[in-house]
Amino acid sequence: MVSLSTTKLEQYRQHFPYLENAAYFNYGGQGPMPRSAIDAINQAQESLQKMGPFSSAVNVWMGEEAKQTRRAIAAELNIPAETMTLTEDVSVGCNIALWGIDWNAGDHLLLTDCEHPGIVAAAYEIQRRFKIEVSMCPLKATLNEGDPVAVINEHLRPQTRLVVLSHILWNTGQVLPLAAIMSACQGYPSHHPIRILVDAAQSVGVLPLNLTDLGADFYAFTGHKWWCGPAGVGGLYVRPEARESLSPTFIGWRSITTNSSGTPTGWQPDGRRYEIATSAVPLYAGLRDAIALQSTYGTIAERYQQVCDRSADLWQRLRAVPTVKCLRSTPPEAGLVSFQLEGGKHSSLVQALESKGIFVRTILDPDCVRACVHYLTTDSEINRLVEAIKEF
Amino acid sequence: MVSLSTTKLEQYRQHFPYLENAAYFNYGGQGPMPRSAIDAINQAQESLQKMGPFSSAVNVWMGEEAKQTRRAIAAELNIPAETMTLTEDVSVGCNIALWGIDWNAGDHLLLTDCEHPGIVAAAYEIQRRFKIEVSMCPLKATLNEGDPVAVINEHLRPQTRLVVLSHILWNTGQVLPLAAIMSACQGYPSHHPIRILVDAAQSVGVLPLNLTDLGADFYAFTGHKWWCGPAGVGGLYVRPEARESLSPTFIGWRSITTNSSGTPTGWQPDGRRYEIATSAVPLYAGLRDAIALQSTYGTIAERYQQVCDRSADLWQRLRAVPTVKCLRSTPPEAGLVSFQLEGGKHSSLVQALESKGIFVRTILDPDCVRACVHYLTTDSEINRLVEAIKEF
Repeated sequence: MVSLSTTKLEQYRQHFPYLENAAYFNYGGQGPMPRSAIDAINQAQESLQKMGPFSSAVNVWMGEEAKQTRRAIAAELNIPAETMTLTEDVSVGCNIALWGIDWNAGDHLLLTDCEHPGIVAAAYEIQRRFKIEVSMCPLKATLNEGDPVAVINEHLRPQTRLVVLSHILWNTGQVLPLAAIMSACQGYPSHHPIRILVDAAQSVGVLPLNLTDLGADFYAFTGHKWWCGPAGVGGLYVRPEARESLSPTFIGWRSITTNSSGTPTGWQPDGRRYEIATSAVPLYAGLRDAIALQSTYGTIAERYQQVCDRSADLWQRLRAVPTVKCLRSTPPEAGLVSFQLEGGKHSSLVQALESKGIFVRTILDPDCVRACVHYLTTDSEINRLVEAIKEF
Repeated sequence: MVSLSTTKLEQYRQHFPYLENAAYFNYGGQGPMPRSAIDAINQAQESLQKMGPFSSAVNVWMGEEAKQTRRAIAAELNIPAETMTLTEDVSVGCNIALWGIDWNAGDHLLLTDCEHPGIVAAAYEIQRRFKIEVSMCPLKATLNEGDPVAVINEHLRPQTRLVVLSHILWNTGQVLPLAAIMSACQGYPSHHPIRILVDAAQSVGVLPLNLTDLGADFYAFTGHKWWCGPAGVGGLYVRPEARESLSPTFIGWRSITTNSSGTPTGWQPDGRRYEIATSAVPLYAGLRDAIALQSTYGTIAERYQQVCDRSADLWQRLRAVPTVKCLRSTPPEAGLVSFQLEGGKHSSLVQALESKGIFVRTILDPDCVRACVHYLTTDSEINRLVEAIKEF
């Protein structure tokens, strides 16, 4: 018996031609694009080329495309559009926040032990350049027991100026209690206000978000993972109260205002001050299309519920396989399901699955396999994955 | 009578559908893409989506796409591929060089008075952050008389560590004698070696280049102007001898090496250390296609000669218009032809021309109109431009 919602999902999945034969569990790496988003990019490229490609008309059009894209993203995150910076990817957003702080020797930056290696490397380069102190707090171990808020609190120092953490940990899938962490930081007697930079690579497009209420200072994300947009467009939210204390670092014509002779006169008044220069603007239409399409399926709350239902299903079925150990001892709070195989061989499993059209990935720390479940995931995909793991 | 070369050009221009009805003179802003480059991007997007979009196969494919693109660019610039960094645009390339120097308070950075406002703003932000000194040398006035090498030499200081200049000045079209400038800097008794950052926005795709012989330390460029590739892909050449003294600033997973548990262990040994993270990789195929197509028309020396012949023609014809004053008193050395109208009204002229499908742009300093002539430019386009200016 096919339920109504299964029929609805099967129909909706027609928008995603590349999901047709695959059992796809790599949304946390990159989401497959809907056909309409690819078409929107092609049409935008065509419009741009026809109007110019460099002309007054194109200049106006590009400004409008960027504006509409900031607005579309802002509506999803419940923030004013002027707090939005368009970036190339999550890492650029994180780097804008990391480098834009007016660091002094002796300042402290706190990372968690679950951050992406690129961000960790950036933090240590800032340590070297500005002679600040960088330390890591052990959140990996709080997946099933212990309190991440308490751990972070214990690692704050009077010199702490920035805490860098992920909203959803990319390795274990743990959702951090951001509001409580923020309160802890605000209540800590530090010499400077403690700013929070959130790596939101795994949360945007999954969690219902109200960044205005959440109060994080910097929230860096991308459109090409859970939003299923094109690679090459992401964004950074900078809380209005934090903007004046965050200087632009990489700077180009998009960052600045100029006078009538083209001389720089200051920064753009809004999030554009952190944008740099020429980008692949046709991609913006693709991201807007992908975002708009999702809302035709259901509200973000409905989609998030579906993610949780299905990831709980996968988690439960994996737990029933004797050779599999799920990292979590309770059902996932979002779409990431990480697990280990008896005897390891995670790379071999990933390769074997890929040869059957089943897409998951390895994670190096903790050593495991990660499967991402989205609202798009079907029972049949989950079946294929679980059966293939049993056979391996 | 139609000459052989006119026929050849008309045939070749069939590759560029968006040139069909336009009289296009904005190559210095953005070049129109050949149809095959647009197709190559679409095919690459299709391949990526089909293979994943996130999978082991895509990871290998993306690495290979980036490698082939660095190689294709390196062959054009006569440099080893490992000196190449892929960037989003010229400004990102310039920022990598500007921020990567280990600045100390009191160091001196010398700019010319013809640099792009975004780069000027970046230099002044570095001045503020690191308490260095920034000054500008007046090259604009050396267009028709005077010696840019002497001017730069006069403005060097014992504390000078970086000179930032454009190979071809984007406003007046002057080609700077880079080799002589480099010698002057090398011969100057400064406390540190003086590094040279070249903004190559207007030279790559026009001038025959051998960057290995030229010896500039940092050479930042883009594919979307004179190469007629897609917006969103550019590059930075870092001379091997300068690499160890230039630290990565914006850092992501592409910049680093990691050990078996994913912990960062150092920088990539080559130009990848300045690359950041996720980009729109399908665009790379478009740039390679655009570069390859140009070589089917003629060698870079032949194309450069054609650029010079045609820009001399436009310059001569504009000089014959009584209301027009060309900035140069001798024929252009490359494709940029800047001119002033009696009584100003440059914006109105640009708008009036655009409404007739003739594309030029205004420049604010010096106040003028800029027309860019490429090897693609036809006599008929030059006619249309000159006649329309006469009518204005």
